Amino acid sequence: MTTLPRKDLFDLPEGVIYLDGNSLGPLPKGATERVQEVMTREWGQELIRAWNTAEWMALPAKVGDRIGGLIGAPAGSVATGDTLSIKVYQALAAALKMTPDRRVILSDAGNFPSDLYMAQGLIGTIDKGYELRTPAPEDVAEAITEGVAVVMLTQVDYRSGRMHDMKAITERAHAAGAVMIWDLAHSAGAVPVDVTACNAEFAVGCSYKYLNGGPGAPAFIYARPDIVENVEPALSGWLGHAAPFAMEPGYRPAMSTERLRVGTPPILQLAVLDAALDAWDGVEIGELRAASVALCERFIAEVEARCPMLKLASPREAGQRGSQVSFAFEEGYAAMQALIDRGVIGDFRAPDIMRFGFTPLYIDEDDVVAAVDVMEDVLGNETWRDPKYQVKSRVT
Amino acid sequence: MTTLPRKDLFDLPEGVIYLDGNSLGPLPKGATERVQEVMTREWGQELIRAWNTAEWMALPAKVGDRIGGLIGAPAGSVATGDTLSIKVYQALAAALKMTPDRRVILSDAGNFPSDLYMAQGLIGTIDKGYELRTPAPEDVAEAITEGVAVVMLTQVDYRSGRMHDMKAITERAHAAGAVMIWDLAHSAGAVPVDVTACNAEFAVGCSYKYLNGGPGAPAFIYARPDIVENVEPALSGWLGHAAPFAMEPGYRPAMSTERLRVGTPPILQLAVLDAALDAWDGVEIGELRAASVALCERFIAEVEARCPMLKLASPREAGQRGSQVSFAFEEGYAAMQALIDRGVIGDFRAPDIMRFGFTPLYIDEDDVVAAVDVMEDVLGNETWRDPKYQVKSRVT
Repeated sequence: MTTLPRKDLFDLPEGVIYLDGNSLGPLPKGATERVQEVMTREWGQELIRAWNTAEWMALPAKVGDRIGGLIGAPAGSVATGDTLSIKVYQALAAALKMTPDRRVILSDAGNFPSDLYMAQGLIGTIDKGYELRTPAPEDVAEAITEGVAVVMLTQVDYRSGRMHDMKAITERAHAAGAVMIWDLAHSAGAVPVDVTACNAEFAVGCSYKYLNGGPGAPAFIYARPDIVENVEPALSGWLGHAAPFAMEPGYRPAMSTERLRVGTPPILQLAVLDAALDAWDGVEIGELRAASVALCERFIAEVEARCPMLKLASPREAGQRGSQVSFAFEEGYAAMQALIDRGVIGDFRAPDIMRFGFTPLYIDEDDVVAAVDVMEDVLGNETWRDPKYQVKSRVT
Repeated sequence: MTTLPRKDLFDLPEGVIYLDGNSLGPLPKGATERVQEVMTREWGQELIRAWNTAEWMALPAKVGDRIGGLIGAPAGSVATGDTLSIKVYQALAAALKMTPDRRVILSDAGNFPSDLYMAQGLIGTIDKGYELRTPAPEDVAEAITEGVAVVMLTQVDYRSGRMHDMKAITERAHAAGAVMIWDLAHSAGAVPVDVTACNAEFAVGCSYKYLNGGPGAPAFIYARPDIVENVEPALSGWLGHAAPFAMEPGYRPAMSTERLRVGTPPILQLAVLDAALDAWDGVEIGELRAASVALCERFIAEVEARCPMLKLASPREAGQRGSQVSFAFEEGYAAMQALIDRGVIGDFRAPDIMRFGFTPLYIDEDDVVAAVDVMEDVLGNETWRDPKYQVKSRVT
């Protein structure tokens, strides 16, 4: 039985209530020490030998197994590295090879733009008349028809927090003969996920949100074990080769998920992520979800009672919502800048969404109430009208 | 006028002569402090705000410009991120779009396997009858014929150190109507490179070798400024979009080399690389090359005089050689393990190549002589016959 929150595991700044862990998780205390060790002792002293002596070459798989534990993936089925966009491309390219007679990639209009962009790039690269369809999220299930090659969805909508039913949609995709890819960017470490039970062919995700791996932390990709030997890697880099150091002229994929590795792994970022994952040891994901729901429900109730100018832009039903709550407000950009200035950090997503993430590892109900105290003042007294909050200088 | 070496800028372990900076450069002293700053102050205190306040979003371009300065690329023409294999794929996919009526990718048999593998993966993804040709390095120029879509070569051969003439081959490629891609993995920071003068469309490279960016440091890609607006990105991630944070449903590439960015940049690794590049401030690349040639010539002379069982596997002519020297020896694997055990660190490449890199930033002629002293003992007395050196446990 874990106890949440675990604030002592993170270095959180004084005077800040951090409701943006769904965008970039905070610094885990063990990460700084770990990166020092990797740099000064492993890189500094062992130099090239550290690939062996410090087990750098095994680190991507080790970290993959730890992430796998949080999403119901068996050991050896998750590869790590690159960015989420790259992992989307890998999954999508492999999926299209499995359905050679079909020409439709089905996603939804709520998917994160980069997932859609990567699909567009792949379509342009192959140049054989593929089509990307993006109906509204609630219309996706019905749009899964016989011509669909692959269904590619992000489980939790990055703007609204709306959640797809992974199992139901995957079943529908399979019934129509399509391959299923889930993007777990806002799911891993946020909501209970069981990729094995849902039976999807692929899942991808990033590790700098709820997993707290740091800015630009490596992404992950899961391939269902029974299909991995049929996965044809588009990004067939040497570290996905069956024998990378044999330096053979021809590519032969590894007979495991390792074939979805590409180039030399980013050891410093992987080490930081590995240290960050320590915060998950012993966490029971059901308990985490219950805490997340309680935080989100309390936040919605407090905001609706005290900030009536904000309109809920997330599903009201907790079971249909991820671990974030979004409110629509026409002056949301300025209002968010004013909140951040007061130490309540969420973020803004065009055109009018104020987004707040709830992360039970380091946020509790006192934080929620304290955050809404500030929101009530900023919105009730319209302190966001200060011209300094109108300047659109933020890039993220 | 610089003074080489600059050993004081690196944390080199006691008792080690490091002749493997062509595989993984050593730890620059400023890098440890820099990563601490990024983690504890920027990530820890600024959290998500650091994308703006610590200029994380601008870091990939800043680092790209610094690398550009070492390869003759103008400001704004080099994007950083991902791995070299990914950058090869990007360049190759874009090049094939520029030559739609041709079907041959020409490389050479000495190219680094991952470059060839990525070409094979792209060929399989497009699936329109492309062919990868890999003649011997010395036969490449003659193999550039009218049907060739793209010539993709690594300037300095990773095994032999043999160097292609970038300008002459690029001219020949252009005369035949082909696009030219240079992989500078063993060139950047090793030999004088001028991508502008050579006029190639693309150049790619990694930063963990001569640039000392650390294990898994980000790669780079150069696109010639006059063609960049015609580059069609295959890996069309959100950070290559003209307006990433507008979250538009359709991909619109940035009107610069930024379109070759893909996903969220690896900030920790970029910061380390940025700190590592400080070691290059004020280095005159002609002076570096002269020092490199002197080190290599001395090494060859000493080894040939004192270790006659080793056969030179690099060009004897300094002008045709990069900043490494390779020797063939049937028992090279065991011999290299024995050398490493004695503190002389080079590496081994199958089937029989003992490879030694020369990096004038932190290696001088005294190191060369001391290294050959050890080699003379290990090879002359066959200490490599110890069974512990025969175990093939090293993965790199």
